[in-house]
Amino acid sequence: MEKLFVFQGGGPTAVINATLSGVLDAAHPCFSNVFGLRHSLEHVATTPPINLTDLTAPSAADDRARLARTPGALLGSSRTKVTEAHLSAVLDVMQAEGARHILGIGGNGTMHALNQLAEFAASRSVDLNIVGAPKTVDNDLPGAAFAPGYGSAARFVALATRDFDFDFRAMQTFDDVTILETMGRDTGWLAAASVLLKEADADAPHIVLIPERPVDEAALLKRVSELHRDLGRVFIVTNEVLTAPDGTVLGQNVQDGPTDSLGRTMYSLSTGTGNYLAQLIWKQLGLQARCLRPGSLGRALTSCVSEVDFELALRAGRATTDLFDRPEDGAKMLTIAQDLHLGWQPTKEGIGRTPLPKAFFDQDDEFAIGLNFATMARSIIGEVSPLFHGIRTDS
Amino acid sequence: MEKLFVFQGGGPTAVINATLSGVLDAAHPCFSNVFGLRHSLEHVATTPPINLTDLTAPSAADDRARLARTPGALLGSSRTKVTEAHLSAVLDVMQAEGARHILGIGGNGTMHALNQLAEFAASRSVDLNIVGAPKTVDNDLPGAAFAPGYGSAARFVALATRDFDFDFRAMQTFDDVTILETMGRDTGWLAAASVLLKEADADAPHIVLIPERPVDEAALLKRVSELHRDLGRVFIVTNEVLTAPDGTVLGQNVQDGPTDSLGRTMYSLSTGTGNYLAQLIWKQLGLQARCLRPGSLGRALTSCVSEVDFELALRAGRATTDLFDRPEDGAKMLTIAQDLHLGWQPTKEGIGRTPLPKAFFDQDDEFAIGLNFATMARSIIGEVSPLFHGIRTDS
Repeated sequence: MEKLFVFQGGGPTAVINATLSGVLDAAHPCFSNVFGLRHSLEHVATTPPINLTDLTAPSAADDRARLARTPGALLGSSRTKVTEAHLSAVLDVMQAEGARHILGIGGNGTMHALNQLAEFAASRSVDLNIVGAPKTVDNDLPGAAFAPGYGSAARFVALATRDFDFDFRAMQTFDDVTILETMGRDTGWLAAASVLLKEADADAPHIVLIPERPVDEAALLKRVSELHRDLGRVFIVTNEVLTAPDGTVLGQNVQDGPTDSLGRTMYSLSTGTGNYLAQLIWKQLGLQARCLRPGSLGRALTSCVSEVDFELALRAGRATTDLFDRPEDGAKMLTIAQDLHLGWQPTKEGIGRTPLPKAFFDQDDEFAIGLNFATMARSIIGEVSPLFHGIRTDS
Repeated sequence: MEKLFVFQGGGPTAVINATLSGVLDAAHPCFSNVFGLRHSLEHVATTPPINLTDLTAPSAADDRARLARTPGALLGSSRTKVTEAHLSAVLDVMQAEGARHILGIGGNGTMHALNQLAEFAASRSVDLNIVGAPKTVDNDLPGAAFAPGYGSAARFVALATRDFDFDFRAMQTFDDVTILETMGRDTGWLAAASVLLKEADADAPHIVLIPERPVDEAALLKRVSELHRDLGRVFIVTNEVLTAPDGTVLGQNVQDGPTDSLGRTMYSLSTGTGNYLAQLIWKQLGLQARCLRPGSLGRALTSCVSEVDFELALRAGRATTDLFDRPEDGAKMLTIAQDLHLGWQPTKEGIGRTPLPKAFFDQDDEFAIGLNFATMARSIIGEVSPLFHGIRTDS
């Protein structure tokens, strides 16, 4: 009987444990033993794997169901770059168990690491069967039209925008501008999700700022001023990182925060883009701007899980184990089409980032997302109960 | 037949419209007409009331049910101080309709305004019947052991703490400190709610900072350092405003933000206490600190409503209309006991703020909330599904 190693990489999502649960469910009875690597591939030398075999038993179905609904990443995750020393330690621990199957659940970085592992094993003439299950709240993984994790994080953004706009309308005699900052260092998929529950022009969001579209501060301030005059309130949704017209990070010189091992500012640990814009609007326009900065909460809140995303994550876990049986050489990853049809591709095709396509930009408005995005992506956030719109209290 | 005026005051909550829905439900058939004042008492002269009578009809039960689940405040709210000119305008609009019943839904400020209205009407020999329904996410309203709105905002804080701690555990090879900033300018009831789903000592929160207990920065840094050494991560929950040992606002000199009409810094519009602490911890201890600052989101998110709070809010709306029939003189407000039993008191007893009682402080730990708080308050946030704790991944 074969033995399976599994790990989770990159930032957790609300449903990454659902994918793990799906893997554990499918592992029985094909695999006699299942081991989990702790904190991804980078800590194998110092942290022993944990034995997950009991969790694969038919009698553990209740535990797997509960695990699937638990946020975080059960096995722990990591963010450091994988080195040859890490890969060597992984081979050692797998060979010590006589295992040749390994499954990673993660995004771009994890697919890259799986690819490195495949090349490293081949260079050592070690026969490994390597597969990857997609995961990312950013939705920028090539091959996954909707990556598990995105739907739930997007649901949080869409609900936060819709729900808080009702609060904002009620307080518009007091507040002028609301800025909701979303996750997403490189791509605008999550900020774009703020339009998914918008029903009327006057509904939030009124401005959506994404890193794919450089932001001219003067044009932004002009638009804020006009919208405030017309609507009495302005609801802005912004990525945590934006691009200035010269290609640098917007407001970079005023964002004070720790730097990572490469000397880059870690924006999510600084006071951030939303606060930068709030101060800019206050100082330039004299409008009171309130920044909501939930940070990574939206990838963890159990109360905002999209049931469509949850089912997709569970199904992705089961389907990824099927990829072990494919005859083709090389590391493989599960792919997900827009209609949620599952397929596969070499993991090396999952390296890189898919930006929000220009086709989803509003062509007539540099600060808006096109309605075609809502048509395409609405279903991934699941069902929501309608609210009461009988009496609009807009002035 | 009598006519009823109703309004909503102060910050919205996730369930203030449930209370309004309860009022509208109970208004039929006692009141022939119901009017809503827009944006509280301060905008009556410039904004005509809206006719809510159709919403009281038995046939409008579906609309009332949907309204009850809608965030924000349907009638709009406000935050400015009430003047004699405002009160005079309220009398004018009520007398024009031949109405003498008015019901306000709000917190300390609203109870104060209702009391002012009663005194003003008496000084003009106008006979008014004035009642108030309690509402506040801060839970500091005298007479309401649990004010409608608190349970849902507290559920958000408790879920955010529990759920994000799973994420934080998974990433503790990368992150050192998480700081969740909660609402609450004056009292610590919401930050204290972070302990309501804590099951084990190692679970978040590890430190809870409230304005009732002055914070010594050196002692705090020492504790953070010790906890990080012992647990590998530190989860801090802090009020949006804290008190320094000398009685001033902690970090006041570094918080840059707009000031209100009285010249006071509006902390919720500045970069805030959580970011101040994150920078302090980074600069003094070299630990990466991430600030989650959802701001007012927790009082609006439909997905975090406590069903216990929702039912209480609905019931409070219905019961407050019963207070019109009491024979005693003067403005009256609904009271709510710890067992959710409803009663009444003069509105003037609802002015002021109830701090978190010292009995709920952990007597042995200046940075912790006592377990007796969880015993007392756990039920108000409603039921939650258990998560999977089978394998703790703490290092």
